[in-house]
Amino acid sequence: MTTMSIPMPREQLERIVRQAVRERLAVGDGAPAAGAAYRPNLVVNISARHMHISQGDLERLFGPGAELTVYRWLYQPGEFAAEQTVTVLGPRRRMIEKVRILGPARDATQLEVARTDAIALGIDAPVRRSGDIEGTPGCIVIGPAGVLEMPRGVIRAERHVHMSPADAGYYGFEDRQHVRLRIESDCTVVLEQVFCRVDPRFLLEVHIDTDEGNSCDLPNARRVELLA
Amino acid sequence: MTTMSIPMPREQLERIVRQAVRERLAVGDGAPAAGAAYRPNLVVNISARHMHISQGDLERLFGPGAELTVYRWLYQPGEFAAEQTVTVLGPRRRMIEKVRILGPARDATQLEVARTDAIALGIDAPVRRSGDIEGTPGCIVIGPAGVLEMPRGVIRAERHVHMSPADAGYYGFEDRQHVRLRIESDCTVVLEQVFCRVDPRFLLEVHIDTDEGNSCDLPNARRVELLA
Repeated sequence: MTTMSIPMPREQLERIVRQAVRERLAVGDGAPAAGAAYRPNLVVNISARHMHISQGDLERLFGPGAELTVYRWLYQPGEFAAEQTVTVLGPRRRMIEKVRILGPARDATQLEVARTDAIALGIDAPVRRSGDIEGTPGCIVIGPAGVLEMPRGVIRAERHVHMSPADAGYYGFEDRQHVRLRIESDCTVVLEQVFCRVDPRFLLEVHIDTDEGNSCDLPNARRVELLA
Repeated sequence: MTTMSIPMPREQLERIVRQAVRERLAVGDGAPAAGAAYRPNLVVNISARHMHISQGDLERLFGPGAELTVYRWLYQPGEFAAEQTVTVLGPRRRMIEKVRILGPARDATQLEVARTDAIALGIDAPVRRSGDIEGTPGCIVIGPAGVLEMPRGVIRAERHVHMSPADAGYYGFEDRQHVRLRIESDCTVVLEQVFCRVDPRFLLEVHIDTDEGNSCDLPNARRVELLA
């Protein structure tokens, strides 16, 4: 018998089961079949500014033995917004409070901000893929039990889409390809350079930041579509 | 002899002269000529949150006889950011300080905010053309000499492009048409529904708001282009 190390709530499990059922309906090469066509369920979510953190840095900020605890489960299986938040301090002592940490803990600590946040902090954060933090600016992070000087890791996350191989097959996309996302609203935009991340564990979900989401008023969008 | 009622700085006069010279080089129907082709000078500027104000409301906020004074001249001839700023208060007492007024004074008072500002204020500001404020939400405005209760006029300005008839001819656009703007950067976007405003007094300039400008990192854009 195996046990799961991360407790998973019913809604996440249900999403995974529904996804598996949809994929069983897909034909082998991913092309939509005439009869029971695989219909991906495209979800676009805004990632507000947040932090990913290593276990070492977590303990530095929250004390020895600290662990991330679940505030809210996210759409991707196993991912969660943690109860833990920090204060971030840029040069010239400008700060943003209550920046939420996302769990589980990772190998490298990084802070993902929108351009508006970067301007507020006075940090020129480059557009980067998650984990690609070499040569990026750092900042000061303040937790309840300590202060962390991040030498690097402040980025604006490259807009990206998580998808399963079945989703990729449906759209004809490949892992690490750039595609476009059109969001139709009273202020329609097409976002180019949306990076595809294909993995069997992923549910189909685009992540954009608050600037991108607000530029097109995503919460009131009438239609979203992925384009080559 | 005539005199100008609004003092105009040298840089604005120079822009107007340059525009007139470019237009003289354009052929009559606006199509680019083979020899001396008219080349429009496309400028894209971010309009930060700001207020337009009637003379009556200006005096209510700044006292009897108050007049707008020039803080900085804008790109469009005669338009300026005023030295006067106000504090804006939304429901649930959320506020934004130092909102700049743009001059000259107009017939109707209106507050133009980005979606991010609207969320900060707690006001659901609709996308509207300047002046089209019927049925829009209001707010409280606080000046040094008084308080103004705006019953309506809080909008997110529809992205738009100012252009002369020669510019319109070059692109093949018509007044009040919707066109697209592509901004190429590390996070390229195509903004649809850009409203054309054609007038002989206009210089070619797109106005987008801070959310739109930050979504594509406009200050570091490599290329901007208007598309049908």
